[in-house]
Amino acid sequence: MNAAAKPVRAKADNIAAYMHERGQRARTAARLIARADTGTKNAALFALAQAILDDADAILAANAQDLREGRNKKLDAALLERLELNRARVDAMADGVRQVAALADPVGEITDMKLRPSGIQVGHMRVPLGVVGIIYESRPNVTADAAALCLKSGNAAILRGGSEALRSNLAIARCLERALGDAGLPKDAVQILDITDRRAVTELVAMPEFVDVIIPRGGKGLVAAVSEAARVPVIKHLDGICHVYIDAAADLEKAVAVAVNAKTQRYGTCNTMETLLLDAAIAERVLPTLAEIYTEAGVELRGCARTRKLLPDAKAATEEDWRTEYLAPILAIRIVDGLDQAIDHIETYGSHHTDSIVTENLTHARRFLREVDSSSVMVNASTRFADGYEYGLGAEIGISTDKFHARGPVGLEGLTSLKWVVMGDGSVR
Amino acid sequence: MNAAAKPVRAKADNIAAYMHERGQRARTAARLIARADTGTKNAALFALAQAILDDADAILAANAQDLREGRNKKLDAALLERLELNRARVDAMADGVRQVAALADPVGEITDMKLRPSGIQVGHMRVPLGVVGIIYESRPNVTADAAALCLKSGNAAILRGGSEALRSNLAIARCLERALGDAGLPKDAVQILDITDRRAVTELVAMPEFVDVIIPRGGKGLVAAVSEAARVPVIKHLDGICHVYIDAAADLEKAVAVAVNAKTQRYGTCNTMETLLLDAAIAERVLPTLAEIYTEAGVELRGCARTRKLLPDAKAATEEDWRTEYLAPILAIRIVDGLDQAIDHIETYGSHHTDSIVTENLTHARRFLREVDSSSVMVNASTRFADGYEYGLGAEIGISTDKFHARGPVGLEGLTSLKWVVMGDGSVR
Repeated sequence: MNAAAKPVRAKADNIAAYMHERGQRARTAARLIARADTGTKNAALFALAQAILDDADAILAANAQDLREGRNKKLDAALLERLELNRARVDAMADGVRQVAALADPVGEITDMKLRPSGIQVGHMRVPLGVVGIIYESRPNVTADAAALCLKSGNAAILRGGSEALRSNLAIARCLERALGDAGLPKDAVQILDITDRRAVTELVAMPEFVDVIIPRGGKGLVAAVSEAARVPVIKHLDGICHVYIDAAADLEKAVAVAVNAKTQRYGTCNTMETLLLDAAIAERVLPTLAEIYTEAGVELRGCARTRKLLPDAKAATEEDWRTEYLAPILAIRIVDGLDQAIDHIETYGSHHTDSIVTENLTHARRFLREVDSSSVMVNASTRFADGYEYGLGAEIGISTDKFHARGPVGLEGLTSLKWVVMGDGSVR
Repeated sequence: MNAAAKPVRAKADNIAAYMHERGQRARTAARLIARADTGTKNAALFALAQAILDDADAILAANAQDLREGRNKKLDAALLERLELNRARVDAMADGVRQVAALADPVGEITDMKLRPSGIQVGHMRVPLGVVGIIYESRPNVTADAAALCLKSGNAAILRGGSEALRSNLAIARCLERALGDAGLPKDAVQILDITDRRAVTELVAMPEFVDVIIPRGGKGLVAAVSEAARVPVIKHLDGICHVYIDAAADLEKAVAVAVNAKTQRYGTCNTMETLLLDAAIAERVLPTLAEIYTEAGVELRGCARTRKLLPDAKAATEEDWRTEYLAPILAIRIVDGLDQAIDHIETYGSHHTDSIVTENLTHARRFLREVDSSSVMVNASTRFADGYEYGLGAEIGISTDKFHARGPVGLEGLTSLKWVVMGDGSVR
């Protein structure tokens, strides 16, 4: 029986045993979900979307209770905002699940079957990772979203949401349980933990025998804590200190368009530009225009000494500014002497997230793409494009700033791996 | 100055500081080696091959001293055998390095550039992982081999060989240093640790700020210890409990060829079959022939009850046998009732390394490939093919039994990752 149906709180003294049992069940379910065909998985997803709509009232009631308790506990207003569901958000949740159903099934795809001199044919088959643990904070929509992505990619999942969203998450869990049951899939394929003790997380990230990868979704504190405790691989996203570099050979119109969009389209997102770099050769021609637009938009400017000669109203940027992810209408500006210094700045202060060059010079573009070691490198495009939907992944389980396995936006493919397939004809060595 | 030239033993009380300094130097070198062009990297590899040949006498002298000390310390004979170099092995080492030079450079390859509705073009660029730590035992040829593979894939490397091979490894390190210098590459791109204190390993695997991935190459004890202590991703290989399943629809000749080759071609390798599974419907027709060949080859047979009815001379296999990687002329045999039971056995007792089905039935073949969760799955081919050279990787840094990032034989591509490349035309969101 799925714990979502009958929440049983684990006693403090047996959390390890409790989590191991959850892990064991996930491991068993993973075998079944891995071999489920596309039609079955999609049926479960459509059933989930429908169940969410059918249960909208119950979900909203549970959410209202979470919100009440959160307010009583004086939780942060931004957190409460993320926690809050309404009819439109519930509809969007169901919609998101249907969108995942519409994506191509990555599992079982066979590629690159090459004949070898020995007579065997060797290639790759895309397969699920196994059991994915997802640890997240307030937003209840992550529950539906993550469940759908894991299901579609043939993985079993253990979801651990924030304690402040427990009732909302368990209401969604009931939808999930029905949907999995209706489709004939094991209920343990997606388990939503009903245990709020922090030690559950410590156990979850340290069971390599049951969990293949952990994805933390939330603030820096959460990601750092999970990474520190993890005994299994973690797909994680830390800072997003993104740069736009306006090269000497930039087209001025493109430079303004990209630099304005990268900063002002949204301030709080990880792919927002935090530092603007300009080649000294072009700064004078482009900076005044940009400053005017930024100032009009209410963006505070902090510049290096050379910047402040052109923009006397800008504050002085400190070393600390180059290392800061503002997530706010603040922009650091530095004038550099050419491409090398720009790349050097990015490699020294950046966070390997997303960086863009504006240039018409092909050699500079190629060097920037090659030498900037970030999960997304761009030419003449706004850093705001670094996003699973914009990249055509259909959906995104997270953004990785790691180098191993997956970099940048992680979609269904990032939740899979490749195994080798060998076809012979009685072939021997 | 590279420590290979002037080995300075770290004092016990500052190992952490010493390793951090090594890590920092590797991180700095990684940026330079990542952007090195193919010609430069190949020049370093050819110079390394030549330096190994030029220094053959010095390498052999150092090795002789390692061997002498090893014998004095009464090291295990098998270990001494792996440690021993001779003229042929030194030649093979240089040859291996030249073969890596001949491989295609994976770094910088751009694939899948797709146009998105927003007007941007999005695809992948293959990039180095960064800094690779390799921890290995006695074989000094791993030093040249691993250095070459990391270099070609644009990674910086920190190599930590066994203390019993220190002099041999440092002799090879001197070749490496000259080769890197000749090619104009930073000497810190490949560092060979001269420190034999075990705490150096504990530090090496726990510096995520300097090391991106650890590859342990050696016995189970080493791999388990490294995995336990690691704070960074580990590409690791544990057991190789490989199966051949002879399906009811197998061609008898192919069945005999594959089952004999998978067991008897070499006994001590990880891709050797350890358990033979046969469908009850075909066992009677194939088992006597196989038993005769195995017995002639000196393979001890251990069977389930049904097997022993057909082969009364076989010993009784215990539950433990199904879980054992013999690495010896011993074979466990079990008769099962069809494909489902075979897959079930493999998933229960196997190690997710390499498993093969012998069958003419397409549906059975397809189910086996899909449902057996091993790094290599095969049809009508010997498990012995699971190997980087046989798969066409050119060289192999290890075999991964993990699911994350790389599965099965890991070559140059497994030492790289993909970053996103976006090309726009002043594109904004």
